[in-house]
Amino acid sequence: MMGRVKSTIKRYGLINRNDKIVIGVSGGPDSVALLYILNSLKKELKISLHIAHLDHMLRSDSHKDREFTEALAQKLNLPITSAQINVKELVKGGSLEEVARNARLGFFFKVAKDTKANKIALGHNLDDQAETVLMRILRGTGLYGLSGILPRREISGFQIIRPLIEVRRKDIESFLRRRGLKGRIDASNRKDIYFRNRIRNKLIPYLEEGYSRDIKGVLSNLAQNAGVDYDYLNLQAHKTLKRLAPRLDVNKIQRMHPAMRRLLFRIKIATIQGNTRRITFQHIKEIEDLLFNRPPNSIVNLPKGVSVLKKKNTLSFYRKKS
Amino acid sequence: MMGRVKSTIKRYGLINRNDKIVIGVSGGPDSVALLYILNSLKKELKISLHIAHLDHMLRSDSHKDREFTEALAQKLNLPITSAQINVKELVKGGSLEEVARNARLGFFFKVAKDTKANKIALGHNLDDQAETVLMRILRGTGLYGLSGILPRREISGFQIIRPLIEVRRKDIESFLRRRGLKGRIDASNRKDIYFRNRIRNKLIPYLEEGYSRDIKGVLSNLAQNAGVDYDYLNLQAHKTLKRLAPRLDVNKIQRMHPAMRRLLFRIKIATIQGNTRRITFQHIKEIEDLLFNRPPNSIVNLPKGVSVLKKKNTLSFYRKKS
Repeated sequence: MMGRVKSTIKRYGLINRNDKIVIGVSGGPDSVALLYILNSLKKELKISLHIAHLDHMLRSDSHKDREFTEALAQKLNLPITSAQINVKELVKGGSLEEVARNARLGFFFKVAKDTKANKIALGHNLDDQAETVLMRILRGTGLYGLSGILPRREISGFQIIRPLIEVRRKDIESFLRRRGLKGRIDASNRKDIYFRNRIRNKLIPYLEEGYSRDIKGVLSNLAQNAGVDYDYLNLQAHKTLKRLAPRLDVNKIQRMHPAMRRLLFRIKIATIQGNTRRITFQHIKEIEDLLFNRPPNSIVNLPKGVSVLKKKNTLSFYRKKS
Repeated sequence: MMGRVKSTIKRYGLINRNDKIVIGVSGGPDSVALLYILNSLKKELKISLHIAHLDHMLRSDSHKDREFTEALAQKLNLPITSAQINVKELVKGGSLEEVARNARLGFFFKVAKDTKANKIALGHNLDDQAETVLMRILRGTGLYGLSGILPRREISGFQIIRPLIEVRRKDIESFLRRRGLKGRIDASNRKDIYFRNRIRNKLIPYLEEGYSRDIKGVLSNLAQNAGVDYDYLNLQAHKTLKRLAPRLDVNKIQRMHPAMRRLLFRIKIATIQGNTRRITFQHIKEIEDLLFNRPPNSIVNLPKGVSVLKKKNTLSFYRKKS
């Protein structure tokens, strides 16, 4: 497993010398394994580590995860910052999973800032990757969604790295077993992520049994390929956007290759709302319809308060006043 | 349904005035519907039609499909060319499905040439599309495979068009029913394409039931998106290839974006073997390993007799002498 992790680190340039890395540790098997692995590479890679643990207060005994993680930190002689947040109280209409994720990331960013760390390492593995890609395929997605969980990604100026993204869950489990280590029960077995759990526990075994013995590996490869292709398209789209800025000329966008045009729409939306979740293929086609077929001063309203206005010569994306 | 077909024709520019179109008619519901639809658009689109029917001799009563199709041609007063070929005799190691497909295409090309037609229309529908995409996902694929069945495609200088690719099988069936028309039993229910049939009859209903009510629509959208993205990447890769030609400089390819590099490898392989079937992600990674890590004069042998040779400064793709 160590070899696999090292090759992932090398291929995606996840870690450089003198990196200061915050490791998100929930206490589950994945993050515990990640912690042990990065800790054992500490000298070789010349990195320093800091543990961050957020108690989401979703289970009555969730404080035990914190105690477990704090004990680990003490055992490995690593600094730790932990905090608790009542995620349920934060949820207003949004999905619990999304709110929890955002709270967690926000906390990790804060710890990274406070400890002057430049990277945040998370424990997602190949099985998570396969589930994510499959879930997105089932719900409808494009190239970006197929990229799944990226090995390396910048969010709000912070580098997120996932050194275990090419390691299977079973290999993580046997890694822990061989070393006599244990993780706490995975906190992700919550009712809120029922769909993901059904994919993990029912659909993937069903597909392995009857349709694709190594469906996990296959979906992980698909994510790798899609990630590379998306990265190229995204770079090109940003170049194109620079040439067009600050105004999007209707004529020019009409003549653009549709792959570029669609990505450009997504980039404009992401600039305003932070991401393109909730934006479906149907929305993109509506904007295209606006661009090609509707008269000047027509508007398309998208979810999360973004609007697109077509004027005679320009197309503009803006936040709708509420 | 007619509206849907017209919008597909328009969006992908499938048909122009004065097109001479060969329609491949097996006698199954899809191709019969396609025939009626194109025939009813004949005047409006100013096109001329010619039916082509190939009897693959895979069933003892396959001549009945020919008789059925010839009767249709007579009824619609359209010219027809039919032929028979013993596909089973042609199969030597290869898959029956692939051999049948190639024989069929070869026959359509010949009819198109003989009748001076510029296009060949085939009856693939949205369900075929969904099955194809799902099958490719399960077997492992990249962006090109996700594009599925293209609405328009050039093969060996002939334009293949698929006006029904956005129409669901159930809509084709009700179209035929409403008009009191019938197709022969779909010849594709052969044992050879057992995997596709299991996907059609078991996996897709299973996914519809428990995971994604409109999985067919979702996969069809995915194919549309992937097709557009692939087209862009492919155009860029061909431009890059022109700049590099005739030799692939090792340094330049090493510095290329991996998305371009991988596509370039696929284009070089397709130029030699006609397609990139059998070429997996693993093969592409082997060529990358050759490029980056192995010494000059190293070789990678690919399936179907294509080899890649790394010299000091160049990388070359060639057909291995057998």
